[in-house]
Amino acid sequence: MKKIITISRQYGSGGRSVGRKVAAQLGFELYDKEVLEQVAEQTGLHKDFIKQKGEYANATSKLAYAFSSLGAQNVIHGMSMEDYIWSVQRRVILELAEKGNCVFIGRCADFILKDRDDVLNVYLSADKEARARRIVELYGETDVAPEKRLKDTDTKRALYYNHYTDQEWGKAEYYDIMLNTTTIGVDRCANFIIDVAKYC
Amino acid sequence: MKKIITISRQYGSGGRSVGRKVAAQLGFELYDKEVLEQVAEQTGLHKDFIKQKGEYANATSKLAYAFSSLGAQNVIHGMSMEDYIWSVQRRVILELAEKGNCVFIGRCADFILKDRDDVLNVYLSADKEARARRIVELYGETDVAPEKRLKDTDTKRALYYNHYTDQEWGKAEYYDIMLNTTTIGVDRCANFIIDVAKYC
Repeated sequence: MKKIITISRQYGSGGRSVGRKVAAQLGFELYDKEVLEQVAEQTGLHKDFIKQKGEYANATSKLAYAFSSLGAQNVIHGMSMEDYIWSVQRRVILELAEKGNCVFIGRCADFILKDRDDVLNVYLSADKEARARRIVELYGETDVAPEKRLKDTDTKRALYYNHYTDQEWGKAEYYDIMLNTTTIGVDRCANFIIDVAKYC
Repeated sequence: MKKIITISRQYGSGGRSVGRKVAAQLGFELYDKEVLEQVAEQTGLHKDFIKQKGEYANATSKLAYAFSSLGAQNVIHGMSMEDYIWSVQRRVILELAEKGNCVFIGRCADFILKDRDDVLNVYLSADKEARARRIVELYGETDVAPEKRLKDTDTKRALYYNHYTDQEWGKAEYYDIMLNTTTIGVDRCANFIIDVAKYC
């Protein structure tokens, strides 16, 4: 029996829907925006600012990202703002995990909780066309083509993950289950994750 | 309903056992060493030689691999021996796939069959310790430590795959299902693959 499930996901893959179903059916807490809210509370920073500095780091290249934390105007407790937010987020996730019976969406929870042995790590992907359709349905049209929005967010998530974890985003060795939601469907993905969480 | 299942796997992950169960329960043909045998028949080359030049390419670095096909002593039909074997293997896999209802183990079948829409692509991994135990159980001890044997074979498979497919071995976007057999177990992996093959 796994007490904690982490769900990493490509943008537009339906990871949040899968996580919601898994949490509901297992009677687990779902931690998605809740992590962000706790970080906001503990730091006094605005959620949108944390979001921008956090998961959706404002980086367009590895170099830009590496240098972004060198801006002297942006230092708190001797750390760059990004590192400070990371350290609070890490503590929040470790504390929530202590209570057990929960599902984390994103935020490198798989890496942060890697020393525990009651965690099931899941990664969800989907076909490009399906992802493009989904983000337009969920978040609406913008001036930027959906394909470009996917690519940008994928790049940012991977850069953020690789930067803070020293692991490679989406690589098989860090996950127990990786599924394509386009092939398998949200419900079947959720049911399999529940089955594994219960019996493995 | 998927008519063809490809199973890519880390060395020692139990991919062959999973493939065998899936094929048996679906009543599908299992193509593992059979591909090698057909390549041997069609080329007149010895199986061991094909194996060495094929999946277990004698490459220790990307550079060595890139240069290995430049050896003038090893050219057939205007191709390097490796490329010749690849081209025959590719044709054998395409022909076997035409008959449908089959499971392919390894040999880049996922890439070779990527233009078909009745294929389910699976990748199986496992924890390092479990893989080390498994290869010693299956293939016995050798002078080389099991960890080193794993690393060498992983490197070779990835180099071979990346060289011939221009895709990245083990990356989420090329597979429908990626499972860690240590967490999930061979039987549960097989049952889920069967379920998805039947109903997705």
